Amino acid sequence: MNAHRFSFYVPDLAPTDASVAITGDEHRHLAKVLRISPGESIHATNGRGLGVAATIESIGGAKTVARVTAVEERDPPRTRLVLALALIQRAHFETAVSQCVEVGVTEFIPVIAEKCHVREWTAAARGRAERVAVSAMKQCGRTWLPPIREPATVAKLAGAARDFARVVLGDAAGNAQAPRSGDDALAIVGPEGGFTEAEIAALAAAGAVRAAVATHRLRAETAAVVLCAALGRGI
Amino acid sequence: MNAHRFSFYVPDLAPTDASVAITGDEHRHLAKVLRISPGESIHATNGRGLGVAATIESIGGAKTVARVTAVEERDPPRTRLVLALALIQRAHFETAVSQCVEVGVTEFIPVIAEKCHVREWTAAARGRAERVAVSAMKQCGRTWLPPIREPATVAKLAGAARDFARVVLGDAAGNAQAPRSGDDALAIVGPEGGFTEAEIAALAAAGAVRAAVATHRLRAETAAVVLCAALGRGI
Repeated sequence: MNAHRFSFYVPDLAPTDASVAITGDEHRHLAKVLRISPGESIHATNGRGLGVAATIESIGGAKTVARVTAVEERDPPRTRLVLALALIQRAHFETAVSQCVEVGVTEFIPVIAEKCHVREWTAAARGRAERVAVSAMKQCGRTWLPPIREPATVAKLAGAARDFARVVLGDAAGNAQAPRSGDDALAIVGPEGGFTEAEIAALAAAGAVRAAVATHRLRAETAAVVLCAALGRGI
Repeated sequence: MNAHRFSFYVPDLAPTDASVAITGDEHRHLAKVLRISPGESIHATNGRGLGVAATIESIGGAKTVARVTAVEERDPPRTRLVLALALIQRAHFETAVSQCVEVGVTEFIPVIAEKCHVREWTAAARGRAERVAVSAMKQCGRTWLPPIREPATVAKLAGAARDFARVVLGDAAGNAQAPRSGDDALAIVGPEGGFTEAEIAALAAAGAVRAAVATHRLRAETAAVVLCAALGRGI
């Protein structure tokens, strides 16, 4: 059902709702870009496991209303796959968020590392990253929206790392062996200039294993998707 | 040597050259963007296995000259890893080229499939894709530039597939098992709307195995990098 061609994000959708009201950007996209007509079938999700199929009843100036025809509730992902990604150029950070939602990341932590050129995490940056995550969630037919946490320092990240069975630091100088999947995992990817030796030592002391995810150096966003895909699908 | 911070593409560089002349865009980037000074050390490659370290001697209006201090010649990649990617939106195609150069693709074939919305492959499109490939090659310290071939129809691609030990079609409906690496491989990724049943049948008849590279549907450019990373590093 949720592999539907037209999918919309409706955060306040509830399992007992007989109809869906689509407003704001999602309404404008439906009406002006996709030019969907009454009678057409859509999919909507609240990003918390609920997905519904619905038939468009009316498209107004500010709101689309659709009648729910089927409801599906999904359990949250059984295992956590958290990506802690250093703040990098905005467009690259957003590429990583988009691709990593597709391959199954369940949560994002922006990381402020010593060599980060980008050091600010504004409300606007967070809003854009969230919109990218929503778009990727809809695109790949998922119904759980991965939250984007507040930024963490490397010291704070090292503290959080102790909760995970597997902590993998993508690192061209690391072990070439592919990480194995299974338990909750924390994937860590540094800024373009890499983590400092002290940062790597702090993460290693917290249990992080250094893994090279390719034979050559990768850009941060490429390392993120390749590492998370490997951690997510058990290869 | 070729993990140098400043790397330049000089297609006519020869192993016996005592100096490197950097012209055109590469010269402008060096002089105006990176603001490199005489005396600084750079890396240059001809994209055909030759990498040199060099020290900047002079930076003129149209040309930078650097004295070669070390030469390294690398054999071509031992195995071919070819990505046949359907024509998709330009920015997405270029993201795929960039990321797939990083993970080790040795050759690209744009594919014109029935459901491609983009059907034109202009000289400008080719030029942009080549610049993206050059940039990624330099970024990840490779010295062999993957060529971007002329576009192929699915029928032509099926003919070419017979030369490969492994032909893998990224397909959400495919076998979930990860493809194994080793021999020459051809990775095939379709347009956003997928290949038609007839196209899939033609590729399967030519030996293509359908493999799901993630648990959910992926965008074409994400499928490309995840599939090629898996094929490239033996996991």
